[in-house]
Amino acid sequence: MKNFEIPGHLEVKNGHLHIGGMDTVELAREYGTPLYITSEDRLRDNFGRFKKAFPDAHIYFAAKSNNNIVVQRILAREGAGADAFSDGEIYLARLAGIPPEKILFTGNSKTDAELEYAVNSGVMVSVDSHDELISLSGIASRLGKEVKIAFRVNPDVSADAHPKLATGLKTSKFGIPSQEIVSTYKKAKELPGVNPVGIHCHIGSQILEISPFAEAMSKMMDLVEAISGFIDLEFVDIGGGLGIPYQKDVRAPTPQDWADAVLPIFRERCAKLGINPELHIEPGRYITADTTILLAHVNTVKKAYKNFVGTDVGFNLLIRPAMYDSYHEVVVANKADGTAADTYTVVGPICETGDILAKDRKLPEIKKDDIIALLDAGAYGFCMSSQYVGRPRCAEVLVHEGKADLIRKRETYDDLLQNQIIPGRLL
Amino acid sequence: MKNFEIPGHLEVKNGHLHIGGMDTVELAREYGTPLYITSEDRLRDNFGRFKKAFPDAHIYFAAKSNNNIVVQRILAREGAGADAFSDGEIYLARLAGIPPEKILFTGNSKTDAELEYAVNSGVMVSVDSHDELISLSGIASRLGKEVKIAFRVNPDVSADAHPKLATGLKTSKFGIPSQEIVSTYKKAKELPGVNPVGIHCHIGSQILEISPFAEAMSKMMDLVEAISGFIDLEFVDIGGGLGIPYQKDVRAPTPQDWADAVLPIFRERCAKLGINPELHIEPGRYITADTTILLAHVNTVKKAYKNFVGTDVGFNLLIRPAMYDSYHEVVVANKADGTAADTYTVVGPICETGDILAKDRKLPEIKKDDIIALLDAGAYGFCMSSQYVGRPRCAEVLVHEGKADLIRKRETYDDLLQNQIIPGRLL
Ligand SMILES: Cc1ncc(COP(=O)(O)O)c(C=O)c1O
Ligand SMILES: Cc1ncc(COP(=O)(O)O)c(C=O)c1O
Repeated sequence: MKNFEIPGHLEVKNGHLHIGGMDTVELAREYGTPLYITSEDRLRDNFGRFKKAFPDAHIYFAAKSNNNIVVQRILAREGAGADAFSDGEIYLARLAGIPPEKILFTGNSKTDAELEYAVNSGVMVSVDSHDELISLSGIASRLGKEVKIAFRVNPDVSADAHPKLATGLKTSKFGIPSQEIVSTYKKAKELPGVNPVGIHCHIGSQILEISPFAEAMSKMMDLVEAISGFIDLEFVDIGGGLGIPYQKDVRAPTPQDWADAVLPIFRERCAKLGINPELHIEPGRYITADTTILLAHVNTVKKAYKNFVGTDVGFNLLIRPAMYDSYHEVVVANKADGTAADTYTVVGPICETGDILAKDRKLPEIKKDDIIALLDAGAYGFCMSSQYVGRPRCAEVLVHEGKADLIRKRETYDDLLQNQIIPGRLL
Repeated sequence: MKNFEIPGHLEVKNGHLHIGGMDTVELAREYGTPLYITSEDRLRDNFGRFKKAFPDAHIYFAAKSNNNIVVQRILAREGAGADAFSDGEIYLARLAGIPPEKILFTGNSKTDAELEYAVNSGVMVSVDSHDELISLSGIASRLGKEVKIAFRVNPDVSADAHPKLATGLKTSKFGIPSQEIVSTYKKAKELPGVNPVGIHCHIGSQILEISPFAEAMSKMMDLVEAISGFIDLEFVDIGGGLGIPYQKDVRAPTPQDWADAVLPIFRERCAKLGINPELHIEPGRYITADTTILLAHVNTVKKAYKNFVGTDVGFNLLIRPAMYDSYHEVVVANKADGTAADTYTVVGPICETGDILAKDRKLPEIKKDDIIALLDAGAYGFCMSSQYVGRPRCAEVLVHEGKADLIRKRETYDDLLQNQIIPGRLL
């Protein structure tokens, strides 16, 4: 009995879970655990799904979901632009080979230093506040440059996302309120150094219903209509947010569903207005989440109040379950076709009760030294990792056509001391 | 109007917040923001409070609360031992100058490699499960060593901590259930390589009531009584968990209150049993939390649905508010004696709605380029930080008698690439 269908880009062979043609149990042996493993093919496929569904749109990968430079290079070669939320993300996107004119700097609380870095890099900026508009105009003028900008708009759309992830409500910290949009674009037109050519929103993350996307598209086009009389609009950016089925029995929308819901609105309204802006989308999670599994080693099985499976992966490496109560499917990698035998709660090695990876899962009998795979760990996984409780961060491997490349070395104790300085008197 | 009394180890001079005799606004200018600033005097004072309240006890600092090597060195010189939750924490404690016989390895899901490291280091081990007991016995025997061990006991005490932080409930993943204690110690006595000499519990963190500590002490002594007939007990470790008044108008217990509640029970029960074990305590948060402030720079003030103050400190650097809904008092460092003028919500530069540092605080009028100080950031602060959203981690400074030492350099873009490897075919 399997409690869910293993997704098609994974395989079970000889009882072992495989990814990218590689045996995960072998990979655990070779590279050690914990271990993030990313499938290059799945990454390219996921990106391809957006290219197919949105044939004329520009796809700006939301690098915040997975900051690995190799992941970004692969997507860059597939033609991705980047949504960069910080100067560090601009730096990484450039290094990944994404040209500056395909990078939108989207941060919500940017420092002057970041703005200067952005201006010098030649990227576009999505402006989030009036203070930022004034700063950016001043900085660009001083540097003798002109920056293409959009404004991040708060469309007040309620998406069924986790409260921490719903970003398009009027109560959220993001964007310019709708009622101030016209005056803000007017002001921007008058300021030196900035050229308002885009409009931008992002309504939330892990959204599993299509209707909020359609609602946001309509509201965006209302705003486009309001400014199109005096702004020469080059692009409309509707953000990311498409959710994935972390629970394999949940039906989740696809890029095609998203496109079907928003493209007709976009095209019809543009036609009516007689304008022809580019459409930009900024998916993150949908591109990266299911490309990656996280392997954990079982250190102990404890029959206490519950059956606790103690592993070497804690919320230091994957914070989503502890922080957002997120669900990740679990496969016992070395017993991947085993019959569910008992109910287990999989935990990590962190000193907090909330350090639980998966609650009450029906799994084959688990013993010390088994290998556990957490699925869908590619988005908001490693990039949110810490060295909490003195744990060096783990390695990452890229798999592709039956070959594996180490793309991030496991940290050592030394990395815990990185950048620390002991004053002489305390030596 | 101040909305709370500035704690005694901080000062306001010329309208600026001071710590350790240093002007925080000057420190922000010199070292940049974000910036963690730790007061050495406050650290020594806090440790001194435990020494005074528990004159005969051994104080094992819970390094997980603040992994900075300098903080640990200062505490080591004050005589602290260490509660280390991982091999990395054993390494750091040794480097801090703490001798192995004053280190207890307390992890709940230890790998064999960690156990071997612990055995070779000569530290004591608090064993959390039967699997671990067997592994440790095997490893120590193989290495021809004998390890002093305790068992982590789950006393089933309900502390009024955050659900993610209450570790002593029978439903939690920690420790050996009480009813298995006698048989477990008996078994340990028979196994080679391990010498059961201690008993250990830890009921939770940020506990603001004293009664759970008294209850745990009694339950521990019941267990001590049950095993004292056949175990030569050298120590009883009652863990950490003493809370601090994050909200300055909350009354919080002191180390003396804790001691007054538990020492009489401990002494009386030991006298009755005719035994004389050491008492160990493992405070973390109480020692480190209020030693440290985190400075943030105001990038933008946005009047939207609320007054949002956008800073450069997000949950990448201080995750407690976003993860546990924790409260930190806020001081506008350059207007520290200002009159509250409006209600502000202080947010960070992370792409999630949950990236809020402080909600609805009455503060002096805030403008771009003001400096905000978040108080009580020394425990579970930097040690839980990440590079999320491509943000290099910030610097740390130690202040002492009007002098400042940089104890951690600010990360650079390069640190975002640390340990990453690009396969040749993707170069
Ligand atoms: C501005 C912006 N665009 C795109 C995204 C990507 O969202 P997702 O990963 O849900 O597709 C985010 C995520 O926070 C964002 O803040
Ligand atoms: C075993 C153990 N001891 C001590 C502590 C320290 O707790 P606190 O920082 O609340 O004093 C912890 C914290 O998680 C712990 O797990």
